[in-house]
Amino acid sequence: MNHTKMQAAVQAYIDLFNAKDAEGIADLYADNATVEDPYGTQPKKGRAEILEFYSGAVKSGSTLVRTGPTQIASNVAAFAFTVYIGGLDEESKGVDIDMPMGKMEIDVIDTFQFNEGDKVTAMKAYWDPAVNLRQT
Amino acid sequence: MNHTKMQAAVQAYIDLFNAKDAEGIADLYADNATVEDPYGTQPKKGRAEILEFYSGAVKSGSTLVRTGPTQIASNVAAFAFTVYIGGLDEESKGVDIDMPMGKMEIDVIDTFQFNEGDKVTAMKAYWDPAVNLRQT
Repeated sequence: MNHTKMQAAVQAYIDLFNAKDAEGIADLYADNATVEDPYGTQPKKGRAEILEFYSGAVKSGSTLVRTGPTQIASNVAAFAFTVYIGGLDEESKGVDIDMPMGKMEIDVIDTFQFNEGDKVTAMKAYWDPAVNLRQT
Repeated sequence: MNHTKMQAAVQAYIDLFNAKDAEGIADLYADNATVEDPYGTQPKKGRAEILEFYSGAVKSGSTLVRTGPTQIASNVAAFAFTVYIGGLDEESKGVDIDMPMGKMEIDVIDTFQFNEGDKVTAMKAYWDPAVNLRQT
């Protein structure tokens, strides 16, 4: 693992998500990687499931905004961000999304575990929709 | 696990650390809990090792300041904070600490895994002194 490459992978993840590039996000992951989002739910495993997950996620019109620096320890990067759902990106939406609840925000902390090739092998997202979703 | 109790345990951890109460911190942990700080190093295991670790840590005169909300997913709480080493708490220091590097800050993300009794069973701290320590 390489600190610089791990930092870059986290930034690429944010940027690719905001560019709605699900394929690009899937490329950050190793073969047979797992995505547990949120932590405690059934993980998505392998490229097909991971790509399907992110393809759906980027279609939501959400935007990720970092709320602090990336922390790296050994082979793991941890970082905090807010997901803005609806409202930040209205103009670039291809379709009108019916959002009866209005704009929403979710605070999240993710951890990415990397392999020797600087690919993500395990992603865990810590957030809870039951207590964490803010209507704005 | 109980969301409210997990949130309260995280806040207690911050408050007890800043009150230099290592015994109080140790009480937040389950028997045979592990503390991996930073992640990737040999874990401290069990009350004696955990108490020894925090007894040393609180003597450093460090202060923890939250930098975001606590994220809870399933049985894990994740939270970001900054450690201020030296300078924030000069007046209450019992001894002068020789700090040739001056005041320092470290950004950290911790995860606490809880058991059914709302005690912490596994703590992992994500930070890296090699890249993360800021001289101020």
